Amino acid sequence: MAILAGDERREALSKLPDWKPVDGRDAIERSFQFKNFSQAFGFMTRVALAAEKMDHHPEWSNVYNKVDILLTSHDVKGLSERDIKLAGIIDRLAGT
Amino acid sequence: MAILAGDERREALSKLPDWKPVDGRDAIERSFQFKNFSQAFGFMTRVALAAEKMDHHPEWSNVYNKVDILLTSHDVKGLSERDIKLAGIIDRLAGT
Repeated sequence: MAILAGDERREALSKLPDWKPVDGRDAIERSFQFKNFSQAFGFMTRVALAAEKMDHHPEWSNVYNKVDILLTSHDVKGLSERDIKLAGIIDRLAGT
Repeated sequence: MAILAGDERREALSKLPDWKPVDGRDAIERSFQFKNFSQAFGFMTRVALAAEKMDHHPEWSNVYNKVDILLTSHDVKGLSERDIKLAGIIDRLAGT
């Protein structure tokens, strides 16, 4: 698994329009807002199950109904296909 | 529910030696480290259930096996008895 670059990277990111680059890190991030904590943590639980299954985990935080997720691949110190795959799963779990 | 102050505050915090004050906010925080993501998220799930039951929720983040938790009471803009109670529950769930 290597860092995504060039056309491959552009094409992958074009399919994830809600994910934004992160200042100072080769990573992408997205914020989610739910109705309440129960819905936010329910979403996090589904993401956690998917992440554990992939053995690829997010950096994330939660305050009540808000969830911020950052994806990067620590082993390659940058964005890899695993991040793209997990971002796609997260988008589907969030209903987008 | 009011901000904890004076002797009441000192006494409450003396029972939570692993929780540290937060720079610039009337809040306390503690970091936890687990063996892996599964254990970290299992702990978070137990904290989430307790928080939802209390209707008092943490500000928290997770990276793989690490969980950082900050407690404050947004409605009173500072530390209240609810934070002390939730911190005690979290300590017990973490096995300390």
